Amino acid sequence: MGLDLIQRLHQPADTKIVLLVIDGLGGLPRGQGNTTELETARTPNLDDLAKHSICGLHQPVSLSVTPGSGPGHLALFGYDPIDYDVGRGVLAALGIGFDLQAGDVAARGNFCTVDDEGRVSDRRAGRIATPVNRKLCNTLKRIDIEGVRFFVETLKEYRFLLVLRGSGLRPEIANSDPQATGALPSSPQALVPKAKKTANLVRRFMDAARKRLKGQDPANMILLRGYSQLPQWPGMKTLFGLRAAAVASYPMYRGVGALVGMEVLESGSALPSQLQTAKKRWNDFDFFYVHVKPTDSAGEDGNFDRKVSLIEQVDGHLPQLLELQPDVLIITGDHSTPSVLNAHSWHPVPALMHAAHCRPDTVERFGERACLAGGLGPRFPATDLIPLALANAGRLMTYGA
Amino acid sequence: MGLDLIQRLHQPADTKIVLLVIDGLGGLPRGQGNTTELETARTPNLDDLAKHSICGLHQPVSLSVTPGSGPGHLALFGYDPIDYDVGRGVLAALGIGFDLQAGDVAARGNFCTVDDEGRVSDRRAGRIATPVNRKLCNTLKRIDIEGVRFFVETLKEYRFLLVLRGSGLRPEIANSDPQATGALPSSPQALVPKAKKTANLVRRFMDAARKRLKGQDPANMILLRGYSQLPQWPGMKTLFGLRAAAVASYPMYRGVGALVGMEVLESGSALPSQLQTAKKRWNDFDFFYVHVKPTDSAGEDGNFDRKVSLIEQVDGHLPQLLELQPDVLIITGDHSTPSVLNAHSWHPVPALMHAAHCRPDTVERFGERACLAGGLGPRFPATDLIPLALANAGRLMTYGA
Repeated sequence: MGLDLIQRLHQPADTKIVLLVIDGLGGLPRGQGNTTELETARTPNLDDLAKHSICGLHQPVSLSVTPGSGPGHLALFGYDPIDYDVGRGVLAALGIGFDLQAGDVAARGNFCTVDDEGRVSDRRAGRIATPVNRKLCNTLKRIDIEGVRFFVETLKEYRFLLVLRGSGLRPEIANSDPQATGALPSSPQALVPKAKKTANLVRRFMDAARKRLKGQDPANMILLRGYSQLPQWPGMKTLFGLRAAAVASYPMYRGVGALVGMEVLESGSALPSQLQTAKKRWNDFDFFYVHVKPTDSAGEDGNFDRKVSLIEQVDGHLPQLLELQPDVLIITGDHSTPSVLNAHSWHPVPALMHAAHCRPDTVERFGERACLAGGLGPRFPATDLIPLALANAGRLMTYGA
Repeated sequence: MGLDLIQRLHQPADTKIVLLVIDGLGGLPRGQGNTTELETARTPNLDDLAKHSICGLHQPVSLSVTPGSGPGHLALFGYDPIDYDVGRGVLAALGIGFDLQAGDVAARGNFCTVDDEGRVSDRRAGRIATPVNRKLCNTLKRIDIEGVRFFVETLKEYRFLLVLRGSGLRPEIANSDPQATGALPSSPQALVPKAKKTANLVRRFMDAARKRLKGQDPANMILLRGYSQLPQWPGMKTLFGLRAAAVASYPMYRGVGALVGMEVLESGSALPSQLQTAKKRWNDFDFFYVHVKPTDSAGEDGNFDRKVSLIEQVDGHLPQLLELQPDVLIITGDHSTPSVLNAHSWHPVPALMHAAHCRPDTVERFGERACLAGGLGPRFPATDLIPLALANAGRLMTYGA
């Protein structure tokens, strides 16, 4: 649905909306079991809420596409993640809390292995350990090229972040990653004439990196891709009329919140402390995004039982959230992270919306299968949530007369 | 959802996908009855599979539009049949297995009746019988015009196929069928300057046809429409990374498979023999499309009981299909063909997808009403099936990070 219409219709109101994101909430049954993590968890508070809410399962991108954390969250914030495409470089910078500035060009780097002829023999340098990556990044940090400043930061294993800071930099540069072994790293080509200067700087950086990494084993070269700049998007205030706050402790989520114009609040990282923060700042904002990370980590670690137990912990803190009496409360995840897959997945995500005038459906508990029968449908676009919250918060005018 | 994104995200994997199309699968209850053909059929294997699958009902085109066989199949193959529009002439050529070549222009012809002034008095010449059509086609085959080769082939009743073969032919020609009686057949006009030569050739053909058919009763003239050329589309290998094979015996289905880049395999026409063929070529392809025709024919004949019995036969062969152990199995139809309508219809089509990581829903048997509660939803776009199969087959990367 077009945001244009919502932008035309939103109106002020003295109402509060809370979006609680339980990261990686959706799951799958394990082994012989028949219930997912959420269905296995004892969640009396969530179930009671589901009974008095409208429920369903949302798709962050589409039925088949597994979202990264960036796209998953953008969809929840009402921004279609295909239209609002964040480059890999920028996402990497957000993920480690790098202070990316307007005009910077960020790229995702791989340490790789090349043979004597310079051909890529391993695109991931044997998945080197993070401490080795740190050492190599320190080597690259010493590269000095006139007219630009380079930042080189460790991400994880073979992955690093490269940021160029200077004037007139452009991100339209072809990936140097040949995406296959046995090929030479492609030279960084400018995709538009304006990007020639930047491409030239990157080429010089790669040449210097080749010299400095020569003889290293196994990581003796770098590949770069996902050149991107901080996008300049309309914020949630413009699109939805919401003064929005993010209560999230991990850099990625703080970063994505900032991208859509949220004020990022300082808070302890546990849910009770996050809710305290929201309470303290209750009068300053219309919209609070509260992010719970550990459920996703448990899923990525393949730890079914821990994910179950973490969901139960969130359930235990719900009364504290309900005490705030938000006019609209959304509880969902940004994507599924089934522990049997040890990874994000494409499966739709359970969601509930609680408000005075949500029409009741027949859902009696909060779980993947139960939500199939909900009023929001078994696979609705995640981007519908914020507009529907606005409606329930009395923040949307009638269309036409 | 855009295929652009899927094309960006697909990755290789050593997995197999099977799409079993039971043509015209969806149905309606008859007379006093309360169950459709599929609901009436005893299908223990399909029901057992449905219990362990994700189910739903798909729309090939939209909730209201009845698809022909071409559009119905294109949707199942992941190609939006509105964007990927095949002309009537090409579909007619595919339907009879005519060896249409790149550059040929194909058109759908009607034998019609015109009065002494040349005005159309019956657009279908009293629906002449197919043998009469053959005789008339033999007459038209003798038309010889310099610089082009004409092929005239019987389709059915009053319908025939006209193909022009030569250099520089274009399909942008206005229909000569006035779509009403009492009007003169329109002269074939070029819709773009480049098509003038072709329009002129068609005009000469029509003039010759008028002379040769003069005095015939009731078919004394022809009408032509649906001028089209073989489309040049990206194949399933390009869009989805799939080496695809078609195991179908009817020309139309072989033709539509070839349009999307499938290798069309030779096989017996019964399902067990088709599954044998798939087994023999198992290592050569990632994707197998297996087509079962008789269910649709029974529906078109209005034979409810025969359709029931044919569905039961397919059910009986399922164990042979499951022995192949595809990583992803889709079972559905290309459209509904309710026997009470004797025709294709607009009704959504039951579908199931079976794979290790399909999230279970609450569907306990394979039927129109049961599938309404499925995780795929009661009316999902048929074009979602291939992308979802790719996800389940480990063939799609994460979007964003």
